[in-house]
Amino acid sequence: MLIIGEKINGTRSEVAQAIATRDAGAIQQLARRQTEAGSHWLDVNAGTAPDKEPDDLVWLIDTIQAVVDTPLCLDSANSEALAVAVKAVAQPPMINSVTGSPRKLEELLPLVAQSGGPVIALLLDNTGIPRTVTERVATAGRIMLATRAAGIADEDVYLDPITLTIASEVGGARITLETMRALRHAFPGARLSVGLSNISFGLPERKAINRAYLTLALDAGLDAAILDPLDDELRIAIQAAEAVIGRDKYGVKYIRSLRPESQ
Amino acid sequence: MLIIGEKINGTRSEVAQAIATRDAGAIQQLARRQTEAGSHWLDVNAGTAPDKEPDDLVWLIDTIQAVVDTPLCLDSANSEALAVAVKAVAQPPMINSVTGSPRKLEELLPLVAQSGGPVIALLLDNTGIPRTVTERVATAGRIMLATRAAGIADEDVYLDPITLTIASEVGGARITLETMRALRHAFPGARLSVGLSNISFGLPERKAINRAYLTLALDAGLDAAILDPLDDELRIAIQAAEAVIGRDKYGVKYIRSLRPESQ
Repeated sequence: MLIIGEKINGTRSEVAQAIATRDAGAIQQLARRQTEAGSHWLDVNAGTAPDKEPDDLVWLIDTIQAVVDTPLCLDSANSEALAVAVKAVAQPPMINSVTGSPRKLEELLPLVAQSGGPVIALLLDNTGIPRTVTERVATAGRIMLATRAAGIADEDVYLDPITLTIASEVGGARITLETMRALRHAFPGARLSVGLSNISFGLPERKAINRAYLTLALDAGLDAAILDPLDDELRIAIQAAEAVIGRDKYGVKYIRSLRPESQ
Repeated sequence: MLIIGEKINGTRSEVAQAIATRDAGAIQQLARRQTEAGSHWLDVNAGTAPDKEPDDLVWLIDTIQAVVDTPLCLDSANSEALAVAVKAVAQPPMINSVTGSPRKLEELLPLVAQSGGPVIALLLDNTGIPRTVTERVATAGRIMLATRAAGIADEDVYLDPITLTIASEVGGARITLETMRALRHAFPGARLSVGLSNISFGLPERKAINRAYLTLALDAGLDAAILDPLDDELRIAIQAAEAVIGRDKYGVKYIRSLRPESQ
């Protein structure tokens, strides 16, 4: 499974402060620690102030790329910020995210095609989050038609079936997991990704809920997740789940992950 | 989910010694601690010495029943020991276990019907463990015909789809989980149970593997498991999984389980 490290996010106060004061060391430490913990991508979110976001995002990119080679996942709803960011990255970025909204698709897919990297597509649109499996798959269908028309390969499309907190939405996780199984059949070339932490929003001992959900999502066919790579228990849970579902034969990777000194 | 506490097992050296020296206090402490930790049933296994097993099993039953009311799961392959044990229990016991072997079914099902309690049925027989989902379901079919013929209600039959260690059996856990989903459809009235600890036999950090497997088994429809109820992390993982799969609406039980003082 691909791990997209979530820590460099301007909606976290520690990161917001580092951006405001141009504290490169704080950002670079997060970039290094997440990379060492096994992140395949680093999410980069500069926060939500529209006028400052382009500059802040480029500063973050330059700051991170000065210390690690991990490719970047550009996390912004602002097409202007994304347009300057794709020029600043050293490697093809992941764009996070488009939605099924026609305007979003029209604005952003040319940028994705041009960048040469993958894109995360949230299965919602300007009318909201579809409530049923069928409606989410229909939204995915519209998105896949648009990405293909834009010349983006299916395997560069990471469909995010939308994770809502179980504290507010009875049966919501089950709908998301069933959507994942349906997407696996409907679009076998496309990938599946989730933002993990939403599932436990508003609950105590959130990490146990996150682990349970990620275990079930892996069984449903998950390819990638935006998560906290510094959470050791979560890392062990991922390796354990991959061993149980047979992605990791005989648990060889699991055993190795518990004994870093033997690598 | 029903928890069958696994600790009073004569194949564990601590328990073997307590049985040999008739150390009632040691057994009673295990009975009390497992009950306080939420066990719905207590597994009772007197070890494997055929000539001593009937006496040892009855001593264990009397010793446990002197301090707790938790019903007992009589864990023996010895029909003579089971025959005396079902007379010693204060409440209808669970019989653990029958198999698809015709001789076993013939010997033990009358005892189950007479005891008035449920039975665990392992999906294997004298020819071994069926390798495919179809063969395991076929074995379950033979067992269900026999239990119905013996007058045992479907909801008193706990089918155990057989858990093999992932260290030796690539794809084995997936076959077991698929068998569970198939059994849910084929025999909707019957229950599903697993012995948890086999899954991680031979692996380090076994508890993480156990948690991953139990999470997936709950999603596949598990009703009961023989496990270590004193493992707090496992208890939290069960509650988290039940919240995620929607058995525990809004995570209410999960939240309560984390705050015992508020109950």
